Amino acid sequence: MNTDRSQSAPEAQEATTLMPTRPNQSESHAVSKARSGSLASSRTGSRTASLTGSVKSSRGGSAVGARSVGNMVKKAGTRVAASSAAAAQLAESASSNSPAMKDVQSASDNRNIAIDRVGVKDVTYPIRLRTKDGGEQTTVASINMYVALPHHQKGTHMSRFLEVLNDETSEPLTPDRIPAITRAICERLNAEEAHFEAEFTYFVRKLAPISKRPGLMDYRVKFACTANGKEDFIMSVAAPATSLCPCSKEISEFGAHNQRCRIEAAVRFKEMVWIEDLVEILEKAASCPVYAVLKRPDEKFVTEQAYLNPKFVEDIVRDLALALEGEKKIEWFSINSENFESIHSHNAYAQITRDKR
Amino acid sequence: MNTDRSQSAPEAQEATTLMPTRPNQSESHAVSKARSGSLASSRTGSRTASLTGSVKSSRGGSAVGARSVGNMVKKAGTRVAASSAAAAQLAESASSNSPAMKDVQSASDNRNIAIDRVGVKDVTYPIRLRTKDGGEQTTVASINMYVALPHHQKGTHMSRFLEVLNDETSEPLTPDRIPAITRAICERLNAEEAHFEAEFTYFVRKLAPISKRPGLMDYRVKFACTANGKEDFIMSVAAPATSLCPCSKEISEFGAHNQRCRIEAAVRFKEMVWIEDLVEILEKAASCPVYAVLKRPDEKFVTEQAYLNPKFVEDIVRDLALALEGEKKIEWFSINSENFESIHSHNAYAQITRDKR
Amino acid sequence: MNTDRSQSAPEAQEATTLMPTRPNQSESHAVSKARSGSLASSRTGSRTASLTGSVKSSRGGSAVGARSVGNMVKKAGTRVAASSAAAAQLAESASSNSPAMKDVQSASDNRNIAIDRVGVKDVTYPIRLRTKDGGEQTTVASINMYVALPHHQKGTHMSRFLEVLNDETSEPLTPDRIPAITRAICERLNAEEAHFEAEFTYFVRKLAPISKRPGLMDYRVKFACTANGKEDFIMSVAAPATSLCPCSKEISEFGAHNQRCRIEAAVRFKEMVWIEDLVEILEKAASCPVYAVLKRPDEKFVTEQAYLNPKFVEDIVRDLALALEGEKKIEWFSINSENFESIHSHNAYAQITRDKR
Amino acid sequence: MNTDRSQSAPEAQEATTLMPTRPNQSESHAVSKARSGSLASSRTGSRTASLTGSVKSSRGGSAVGARSVGNMVKKAGTRVAASSAAAAQLAESASSNSPAMKDVQSASDNRNIAIDRVGVKDVTYPIRLRTKDGGEQTTVASINMYVALPHHQKGTHMSRFLEVLNDETSEPLTPDRIPAITRAICERLNAEEAHFEAEFTYFVRKLAPISKRPGLMDYRVKFACTANGKEDFIMSVAAPATSLCPCSKEISEFGAHNQRCRIEAAVRFKEMVWIEDLVEILEKAASCPVYAVLKRPDEKFVTEQAYLNPKFVEDIVRDLALALEGEKKIEWFSINSENFESIHSHNAYAQITRDKR
Repeated sequence: MNTDRSQSAPEAQEATTLMPTRPNQSESHAVSKARSGSLASSRTGSRTASLTGSVKSSRGGSAVGARSVGNMVKKAGTRVAASSAAAAQLAESASSNSPAMKDVQSASDNRNIAIDRVGVKDVTYPIRLRTKDGGEQTTVASINMYVALPHHQKGTHMSRFLEVLNDETSEPLTPDRIPAITRAICERLNAEEAHFEAEFTYFVRKLAPISKRPGLMDYRVKFACTANGKEDFIMSVAAPATSLCPCSKEISEFGAHNQRCRIEAAVRFKEMVWIEDLVEILEKAASCPVYAVLKRPDEKFVTEQAYLNPKFVEDIVRDLALALEGEKKIEWFSINSENFESIHSHNAYAQITRDKR
Repeated sequence: MNTDRSQSAPEAQEATTLMPTRPNQSESHAVSKARSGSLASSRTGSRTASLTGSVKSSRGGSAVGARSVGNMVKKAGTRVAASSAAAAQLAESASSNSPAMKDVQSASDNRNIAIDRVGVKDVTYPIRLRTKDGGEQTTVASINMYVALPHHQKGTHMSRFLEVLNDETSEPLTPDRIPAITRAICERLNAEEAHFEAEFTYFVRKLAPISKRPGLMDYRVKFACTANGKEDFIMSVAAPATSLCPCSKEISEFGAHNQRCRIEAAVRFKEMVWIEDLVEILEKAASCPVYAVLKRPDEKFVTEQAYLNPKFVEDIVRDLALALEGEKKIEWFSINSENFESIHSHNAYAQITRDKR
Repeated sequence: MNTDRSQSAPEAQEATTLMPTRPNQSESHAVSKARSGSLASSRTGSRTASLTGSVKSSRGGSAVGARSVGNMVKKAGTRVAASSAAAAQLAESASSNSPAMKDVQSASDNRNIAIDRVGVKDVTYPIRLRTKDGGEQTTVASINMYVALPHHQKGTHMSRFLEVLNDETSEPLTPDRIPAITRAICERLNAEEAHFEAEFTYFVRKLAPISKRPGLMDYRVKFACTANGKEDFIMSVAAPATSLCPCSKEISEFGAHNQRCRIEAAVRFKEMVWIEDLVEILEKAASCPVYAVLKRPDEKFVTEQAYLNPKFVEDIVRDLALALEGEKKIEWFSINSENFESIHSHNAYAQITRDKR
Repeated sequence: MNTDRSQSAPEAQEATTLMPTRPNQSESHAVSKARSGSLASSRTGSRTASLTGSVKSSRGGSAVGARSVGNMVKKAGTRVAASSAAAAQLAESASSNSPAMKDVQSASDNRNIAIDRVGVKDVTYPIRLRTKDGGEQTTVASINMYVALPHHQKGTHMSRFLEVLNDETSEPLTPDRIPAITRAICERLNAEEAHFEAEFTYFVRKLAPISKRPGLMDYRVKFACTANGKEDFIMSVAAPATSLCPCSKEISEFGAHNQRCRIEAAVRFKEMVWIEDLVEILEKAASCPVYAVLKRPDEKFVTEQAYLNPKFVEDIVRDLALALEGEKKIEWFSINSENFESIHSHNAYAQITRDKR
């Protein structure tokens, strides 16, 4: 895809902040990775003035040199790898900071159509998050980053999004830092409006209700932020839980169908809300929370708790709405629950959106 | 999940319209299916007054009879299937149209919280569609159906959604029939507002550009409609296509990276637009359409066409926006393209929404 | 991808068998589709001997003509579409059955490495199936088709797989016709061994257990066949169902956790087994089947049936194994059940494979 | 699901090793989480002898107490939460280590059917891995853990799988530690055979080929191990890459279709192979590797490298097979490549399996 005008050498400080690893990770690995790149490996150390000069002139002139390399290789057949001489020449050609390498993205566009969002989607990236208790947690996010593009500009510079990501994730994230990251996209991409979205699994340690055995529960979290002078940040947390059907309980002589459900709340808040806070609210809205590790006394407990606490999908979203309406930090919410019905192959679903402002 | 108050016997006319099959499908299969249901099979023909009566009285009374069946089976261990006598008794108990079988969903609710959407999600269902040329096509849809629930009502009647679906899909669908289906949900569920969503694969026969070999192209289509007095219908079509990067072409001596992309348009229209119409518009916005079958002369053609027609993801959405702005039938559109970049593991994405009204 | 040597004009008989549509589908649609293809449209009817000849000679000679078209367009900038004159010329160039168009796939390969499977994957395609009761059903399949490639051959001809698919699916499929389709791949691709795999949703009409309301249940089915002189065909069917935990029932004062599960059986058989037959066997192995439409008396029935019939995931696969061992038509099976535990966010799983031969 | 016989209090050492967090994570968080559990919170500190005793006796006796709680709540209607008194009583009932709480899983089974695999599937869990350069990396895995169950045993103890996972992941993983984890499952579950499977994203820092800008590439990795006296471990790594079609290049005047592909190698090795080692081998088999960050000179380089290095999907797997046959540490491999064709909506695929032993 399209790239950037700035073609400087790699900056050391970017390299050091790139990955959430322990201090004993040496740089030698990364270097050896780069060297192992097929064609690149043959040219290490060969960036002599003469070679670069010769390719440069060939580009400025009739482009015969490089073109003939291409033709040569094409004629040589499809299986024969480029000769190392040709490869080195190509690498030099590419690395020469030629003024002739046109910046297509920066060209003007005369279709008179502004673009609402353009950028990178589904970037898989490790992120560290600050946990509510002051610790840290590393997870893997799927990230989207977009800007609004004015009508007169042909294209955005995609590689800069990745550079912002590299820079901004060197410190552990908290929900309240996301607006600053989104503003950083505006600045780096020189855009009036930017969007940042990240979705990831977040783990919370949870003890079994009776045996107190520890386990790790996984929740799906989304951060979504728009910055265009002011910032609009929405945090979503989805928790698996148990729902037990009140109708089934009422009409049956024994038992009641129940199932895993997925309860989700997207919220806008005026004071910091932690992922852990939302998890707690979400799980209270279910017939019973779910757990990673349950011993027999725990299983008895959750079975009976769910039976004592039957809820339609409608009840879950209503009880969750009540809880969020009572939470002063939260200004707006959009909630839903999806029940993976144990008696059907389809799901039951309910959704409520409320603006408290 | 919650069910319906109407507990009448199966209606023959529903049964006959249920499935898009050829006339030679007999009813005997469906009946044998039902009879093969484990417990149900033992009770066929046994709905005698005496049995029904005995269970009824036990429910009206102390419920000792059925409860003791449950205890008996529980004590008998987990592997032993219910005795056929017990099973028959339970089937009778369930089938008796007892006035004691409470309609929990119709109870009142005092939390004072209306629900925006509640219903069934991810119903997998076969649908027939009328094609633009007057033929028909059967495909498999994933369907969501929701209603708004007023604050005072405890729950909706989920099974009725499926009944609407069974009834309304007996005739081939066209985009302009979807509002009527959505209104039918309002009526059957007695709701002020209803939502209908269906997503499915739609096939269009397409000839290879040079050899004219026929092939079937698959497109993803979504219908989404809200009815609340008036109807708001949105149709989305997504087409796979080829995009070729203008920057890569410009700066490289030979070749240009290209990739599969996915171009999508959601539209509101005031005059009927066919899926086929949108497909045609979408494919023109790409560097080149994709095909199911390509012989060598075709492959040469599409390779060269894409190279002659380089487009950034920004170009694709802008050209598509231009085309849709020029299409008088269309009042509103939201379009996007996602390029599965051949030189990255992430995607490039652009999106534009415009209201022409 | 790679294409085929045979570059003849489109064959009418292929076109007519391509799509499972009603008789009133005219050919005019397909033709108009082809005409709407961007570049192709300008050349319709222009396949005159003179034009073809001129391009041919340019290819046979210095290739200056077509090459200069490319350069011209490249220099003209990235947004300007190819002129229609250039486009027509390219189409002619591609359509000319030039002896110079090399068949790269048929070249010899000297790496001495045979390929186990090579072909097309994830082809989305409509298929018609014969149902057990003699009717028909159209659904959408995801299809893979592969051949073994001997060490000396460079590549396979991918487009031929699609042509086999077009030809072989004109008649409704039954499980016992799959081996013939797989043999057809061997023949058309001139291969010693071929593989055919199709996965699709299959619908079975099912009446609610008490109210007898009709509904459509969806099952996931896979056909997988290898042909290499003899044929090896495996059919898999997966059914959603209800499982209820015996431990939870045993240790709890009331209730028992239950959930949707997915029970799957892959079988090799020596006498025809219908999808419907496997569905029936699968559903009997669960605590209770699931249904599309359930009214209140039905819901009472399935709730109680599941409670009376508690099964661990281990019990489900064992009972299913017992049933399949007792089924004489079946020679081999591999079965599994996955329970989407209502009290955990992970699943319980069990699997058994047995060869009865 | 089924649980374990051991019902002791939580063990402190398990708690401390549970999560890969920094030292400043205090235990207070986990404790407060547990306290926030709905019913459990009301009983903290209330485990007095008298209460426990009273519930115990009620269970040992007529079970009137707890049963009547259930009835009371059921009659109270579906929306009323259990009173806190009832909840506390239930929690006590569950926590009492009653000899009456039957271990259903340990019962004998008389169906005479052994189960090949039974256990937990799709456990989402954070894992830390040792990187080749001596550092560490935390990622999120989807984990399956199974045991073989002898014919005479009714069920396995699912919660123990999670306990093994908690225990064994306290130290950073390397591929050569997986067999020991699998043996630990055998021991803890008292099984003859166990299976461990983990799939996760692994990041490798990679410099752009010319600008040397750093970026993080994401690869999908699978560990799969069976232990049954001896261990059989298979490691799979999948890398995204670029493939460029030799046929398209050969027959076209300019350009060549190319696309993202996914190249995967599963290997058995006799000497330690790092994920990084396989990544390097995989990427060399493609037309060109892909990168996270590419500036313009990099984009020129990868475009031209791919064009100089055209490969059918067949070429990719053959070149990869050659490389793995030359790698002495590797004893067996199964490799495939899937090309997401830019000119089709389906994929091209090839696969080779070889045993070098």
